[in-house]
Amino acid sequence: MESERELRITLIGAGTIGLAFAAFHLSHLPAPPHLTIYDTRPNAEDYIRANLPKFFPKAATPPTSAVKIATSLPEAVSNAHIIQESGPENLQIKQELWAQVEKHATKDALLWSSTSGIPASQQAANMQDKTRLLVVHPYNPPHIMPLLELVPSPATSPAVIQRTQDFWRARNRVPIHIHRETTGFVANRLAFALLREAIHLVDAGVVSVAELDGIVESSMGPRWAVAGPFKSYHAGGGPAGLEGFFGNIGETVQACWSDAGSVNVGDGWEDKVFAQAREVYGTVDVAERDRITRRLLEVLEEEKGKKLSDAPLES
Amino acid sequence: MESERELRITLIGAGTIGLAFAAFHLSHLPAPPHLTIYDTRPNAEDYIRANLPKFFPKAATPPTSAVKIATSLPEAVSNAHIIQESGPENLQIKQELWAQVEKHATKDALLWSSTSGIPASQQAANMQDKTRLLVVHPYNPPHIMPLLELVPSPATSPAVIQRTQDFWRARNRVPIHIHRETTGFVANRLAFALLREAIHLVDAGVVSVAELDGIVESSMGPRWAVAGPFKSYHAGGGPAGLEGFFGNIGETVQACWSDAGSVNVGDGWEDKVFAQAREVYGTVDVAERDRITRRLLEVLEEEKGKKLSDAPLES
Repeated sequence: MESERELRITLIGAGTIGLAFAAFHLSHLPAPPHLTIYDTRPNAEDYIRANLPKFFPKAATPPTSAVKIATSLPEAVSNAHIIQESGPENLQIKQELWAQVEKHATKDALLWSSTSGIPASQQAANMQDKTRLLVVHPYNPPHIMPLLELVPSPATSPAVIQRTQDFWRARNRVPIHIHRETTGFVANRLAFALLREAIHLVDAGVVSVAELDGIVESSMGPRWAVAGPFKSYHAGGGPAGLEGFFGNIGETVQACWSDAGSVNVGDGWEDKVFAQAREVYGTVDVAERDRITRRLLEVLEEEKGKKLSDAPLES
Repeated sequence: MESERELRITLIGAGTIGLAFAAFHLSHLPAPPHLTIYDTRPNAEDYIRANLPKFFPKAATPPTSAVKIATSLPEAVSNAHIIQESGPENLQIKQELWAQVEKHATKDALLWSSTSGIPASQQAANMQDKTRLLVVHPYNPPHIMPLLELVPSPATSPAVIQRTQDFWRARNRVPIHIHRETTGFVANRLAFALLREAIHLVDAGVVSVAELDGIVESSMGPRWAVAGPFKSYHAGGGPAGLEGFFGNIGETVQACWSDAGSVNVGDGWEDKVFAQAREVYGTVDVAERDRITRRLLEVLEEEKGKKLSDAPLES
């Protein structure tokens, strides 16, 4: 890829996700890029200058004046090496956007969509060259959480996927290649599977919303921050690993699976669960949550760095 | 409860869970208790003296010589204020154990079972007084993870539940009262729900075992360590809270639920998933994992303490 100092990134859409990505780019090495933001809302410039600083911890706001606010799509994309859209979750809008972007962008610009649900293969329907587009789905909020799900379409070229991974790895992010376009990708499917059982247990009166959160915060949350579920249960099985784990308690696992709830949206659990959440949490102090999350991630990044530097160099 | 300095705790069963509880008690304030361990294995004393030190970080092993190793059940339980069993997961063994314990223990000793699956109501079948027994289920490893699921039977007295909560809260643990005896309790049901979807996604070739763990470690792991799923999604819904969240992306949530896998034990996914886990993880360095987990939990406990000390005192 072009020298990092010369890297030009364009973000389309200045909603919460777009601005969070802008904040990320402005505060992460290797180098602050040439950053352009384009948004079709009226007074976009005022809006962006007023809201972008909110994505930085107090007293750590880098100069955001260097961000260029484009006033047209051609101006926004014509020089960019990377173009990421975080626009409305609407298939037709995205299809039209990429067809336009393709007309004005350079031939090897990387094209990324932050969508949480619309596959690249559908977004690319009106494009001539479908090889450069893929989904780069963050975990909210993207200026803090390390995960990026890279979900190419069958037409996306391997070189594009590789360049995308290299970009994020160089910034200490965790870009994971999802090998098949799948409803909801992977992170949300996993989280929603747990959420579904959580709703069932609250709905059935086994625990309250606050008790359930207390359980997760003091067990699998910190556990999985350090070692994901497979690694954890592989360790739990002792020398026989995951196979040993299922040998020991596979019956209990299956009993839980067989007894699992399977609530659906609109089933009637909503009133109880929403009311409990309102009552116990009111308005969540997101700044506080983000500050603590940053501290945890610093510890994890430090430990990961330690591990890498302890590892023998490959010859 | 009796003065902490005089508190006498007896642990029955010196397997991994029993020894981890011993390590916890020896290293946590308010005060090192009078700790007795009883185990029926041959040479129990040698085994315990040799293995208990492994549950402490290097250079932080407190004197374990003060631990008393009982040679009979009556000797082990007759003076104890708290008796916790971490024996084999076998209903008959537990039923016989509690009937014996009841004969020799003092009338108001608290009786706890570490079981991960056998309800207190079944364990208590042969007891005269079923009010004192409840499940106190740790999250592995119990000397590190803060969660304890308190699962009383319908016969357990509220005062016993309260005394049990007080004990663990005084030690900065997170004892959560599960209001109904439920297959697998709550933590495992939640974790296994996610694990089931994880297995499905690996089995379907969407991601590998290592990629899936990478996703969880860089997203919901650290997120849920700070704010459980309900709190997180309540925050994600903005001012409208959890209701707003479902208003915005309830359709995506339902699409993930409708498309979710539902593998079962023995379905044939095992070979692929076990082999990947072996290949990528070999033998997990549990000491390393535990060290990093302790660091995260220290941050979380510090932040929680800060929050509590910031809160206005109740009058």
